[in-house]
Amino acid sequence: MSGRLTVIGTGPGTPEQMTPEAQAAAASADEFFGYGPYLDRLSLRPDQRRHASDNREELARARLALERASAGARVCMVSGGDPGVFAMAAAVCEAIEQGPPEWRKLDVNVLPGVTAMLAVAARAGAPLGHDFCAISLSDNLKPWSLVEKRLAAAAGAGFVIALYNPISKARPWQLGRAFELFAGILPASVPVIFGRAAGRPDERIETVPLSKADPARADMATCVIIGSPETRLVERHGLPPLVYSPRFSRESA
Amino acid sequence: MSGRLTVIGTGPGTPEQMTPEAQAAAASADEFFGYGPYLDRLSLRPDQRRHASDNREELARARLALERASAGARVCMVSGGDPGVFAMAAAVCEAIEQGPPEWRKLDVNVLPGVTAMLAVAARAGAPLGHDFCAISLSDNLKPWSLVEKRLAAAAGAGFVIALYNPISKARPWQLGRAFELFAGILPASVPVIFGRAAGRPDERIETVPLSKADPARADMATCVIIGSPETRLVERHGLPPLVYSPRFSRESA
Repeated sequence: MSGRLTVIGTGPGTPEQMTPEAQAAAASADEFFGYGPYLDRLSLRPDQRRHASDNREELARARLALERASAGARVCMVSGGDPGVFAMAAAVCEAIEQGPPEWRKLDVNVLPGVTAMLAVAARAGAPLGHDFCAISLSDNLKPWSLVEKRLAAAAGAGFVIALYNPISKARPWQLGRAFELFAGILPASVPVIFGRAAGRPDERIETVPLSKADPARADMATCVIIGSPETRLVERHGLPPLVYSPRFSRESA
Repeated sequence: MSGRLTVIGTGPGTPEQMTPEAQAAAASADEFFGYGPYLDRLSLRPDQRRHASDNREELARARLALERASAGARVCMVSGGDPGVFAMAAAVCEAIEQGPPEWRKLDVNVLPGVTAMLAVAARAGAPLGHDFCAISLSDNLKPWSLVEKRLAAAAGAGFVIALYNPISKARPWQLGRAFELFAGILPASVPVIFGRAAGRPDERIETVPLSKADPARADMATCVIIGSPETRLVERHGLPPLVYSPRFSRESA
């Protein structure tokens, strides 16, 4: 048997948002690596082996998975959302670059998925309707000064901004600092969407103006989307407002 | 019968990358609106009515779909990729905002999908592995000066950049101008990925250094991804290189 490694994303959580391609890859794998809660989203058979690991051990997890594939196993690496967005595909590439030469001969495939910002945006309307960016607010892997530089550049140039990893017990102040920074650049009325667990039973989507954005509304499962000065709110009677960023811009640079 | 409008994305093209949720929405709809080639991706039944329209008529198409939903039809609006990324969800929101008050009472849902940059990134490795942005290079809907401002801001702040709508017969020079602008900001060695028809039989994924990026490699079906100065290439014997942007950054702002 020839080994292989397939890196898949489960989508935001509901099986209805996981692609048939990723589901087929999971069905044909022998061994699974990933953060426990993401592995829990799959319905594994008794003959499929599960290697759950903690959220922070990406590189070690990638190496173990590559070792097993190298030994002939059909391995599935499981991310939430899309595996290429702040997830395991980059860690697997990094492990291959640093690892033994034979890992460069392995059959490695990455399969795309629905990433959190797309799921949150869909529930709110179309806030990512014009140019946008995705920034991880975690300063575990990059200096905070670089995060601030990117936040300021994106807000100043009129991008809609999706924040991943907005807050955690170990990183309690960064989101509040980001809102302060935005308040110096963007109008107070810019819509901020706190999108938690989009598409899942415990989903919570809240939209508030930037001036009322409270970091305490976010947790580790939240994707926060900050509108641009052009992002609009369409009020609806008895329904949540639609939030959208027009395709058309009259703004000049 | 109570009307409704569901805005779906087919994903990049192969049915294996269209979510079960979007497939179920298509199966339960009566009428379909969208650009012809996207409607062609669905296997419609004889009882399902197809309203194909040209690529440039988004707002008129959205209004027609809302009229049909308002008249009681179960309507499906079809985008390629994800409907919220340079696609129909924003046009539908815009039409609701500008339309009659009863459109604000309609049952309108947007279902997320796999957008082109995620599909292209997956085939290349993990080029979107750190902070990234998506920019439409079309100046049909915004001034070119604003496009340039965003390109420069994103490249200067170290974002990986995904370009949608990079080139067309009516917009032949914009991609070349973007490459010139990047050449003044980014190292000549930065990887540029031309990702065409990712996941489809006619897929073509090419990676070249910025100094050799030729706009003629792109067409309307191409998503172009420009790496950051930290994006890396992992050469492999007999396989295409892996392109990835490390999760870890040593760069300071």
